[in-house]
Amino acid sequence: MASTHTVKSFEHELQRLASLITQMGGLAEAQLEASVEAVVRRDVDGAARVMQADASLDGYEQAVEQETVRMLALRQPMGIDLREIIAALKISTDLERCGDHAANIAKRAIALSQLPPVRPVGAIPRMARIVREMLKDVLDAYVERDTQRAIGAWNRDRDLDDLYNSLFREILTYMMEDPRNITPCTHLLFIAKNLERCGDHATNIAETVHFLVEGAPLGKNRVKGDNSSFEVLEPPAATEPDPTA
Amino acid sequence: MASTHTVKSFEHELQRLASLITQMGGLAEAQLEASVEAVVRRDVDGAARVMQADASLDGYEQAVEQETVRMLALRQPMGIDLREIIAALKISTDLERCGDHAANIAKRAIALSQLPPVRPVGAIPRMARIVREMLKDVLDAYVERDTQRAIGAWNRDRDLDDLYNSLFREILTYMMEDPRNITPCTHLLFIAKNLERCGDHATNIAETVHFLVEGAPLGKNRVKGDNSSFEVLEPPAATEPDPTA
Repeated sequence: MASTHTVKSFEHELQRLASLITQMGGLAEAQLEASVEAVVRRDVDGAARVMQADASLDGYEQAVEQETVRMLALRQPMGIDLREIIAALKISTDLERCGDHAANIAKRAIALSQLPPVRPVGAIPRMARIVREMLKDVLDAYVERDTQRAIGAWNRDRDLDDLYNSLFREILTYMMEDPRNITPCTHLLFIAKNLERCGDHATNIAETVHFLVEGAPLGKNRVKGDNSSFEVLEPPAATEPDPTA
Repeated sequence: MASTHTVKSFEHELQRLASLITQMGGLAEAQLEASVEAVVRRDVDGAARVMQADASLDGYEQAVEQETVRMLALRQPMGIDLREIIAALKISTDLERCGDHAANIAKRAIALSQLPPVRPVGAIPRMARIVREMLKDVLDAYVERDTQRAIGAWNRDRDLDDLYNSLFREILTYMMEDPRNITPCTHLLFIAKNLERCGDHATNIAETVHFLVEGAPLGKNRVKGDNSSFEVLEPPAATEPDPTA
């Protein structure tokens, strides 16, 4: 019996670790989708489910950490095996953070459901779709050890940043039109930022997949395309809110 | 010669790793302080220096990652030695993220310097002081392997969250008073959020120090005290901006 246990291959443990990451990735994608759905449908129950399910992602992250520390101690791996373990540890951190962003979006969905609807909500699902595609691609790239696919997802972060920057301006303009838009639009600003950050985590995962497969980092750090931090939009003269509206 | 190299103690490598973390922590603290200083003084040059210096923190993170991967492969450590290496890897990620937040605050300082001053800026240094104290405490706790000090810093995150929540409401109110406040106040909202996130990274480091010293996680995940995501503040009837003001 003991020998059966002893010969249980390291390969099998690595597969189990990769499978934890794949499951965790699927859950993170689902959480993100459900959180944005809750925003669009003003669905308080759906939002509450997302917030509850976030604990599972935290559980996955802890399981991956325990497993990696155990494997490092017992197996003392080198080369590609060591990179596999480090990659799993890093990817689980990024996925857990995506889960936190989804939970935060869900919280804001609850607040938004109690406030008057605002138009810029429409752009949120567009952003979310790009993020989900990026996440799906980097996770597929992880499973298939496909560097090109990882780089493709990594490059798509630019589109996401462009969308974020234009949405940011749109939301600000909308806030200036009527002070009643300010609270709901503030939530939208942070939801857009949550999605933009998930895109950054997807690019981190792309970089980790590159490191895993190639054993070298993916070139220089990409310049971040979030320009909203430089925004100095001023209200046009015509946007004083109409108190009779 | 070769034997001198071979006997260079693992202990010495661990010390060098810890020293990388301490230097990186000092830099992250300094970046945070300088970024908030740039906001308060409307100092574009200071903000630009913070943005430039962020590359050093990225460099430290890469150095720590390379060093840890190398040590894991060559030294195949166990027990406390293994925890030392994993802890360094985790702390460097948190410090690098704090640096990103400081760089983002600096970007916003540049935008703010081109916009009319707004009152709630005054609360930003109060938040920043708590964050810096937390960071200093968790880094001292790391150096001194002092779990109690780590737990003390971890608990202080509640004060930071309280301050963030009240500041969030204040900024929203101020936006509702006058649409010209909206753009500068949006930057303040994100600066406050950046600081609140740095507090979360400090609590992560506190948890890592606990794991390092005690070999076990620090209890259940603390419930996050950022309630601003639930905010449904509405403008009072009297806050329509005065177009003649």
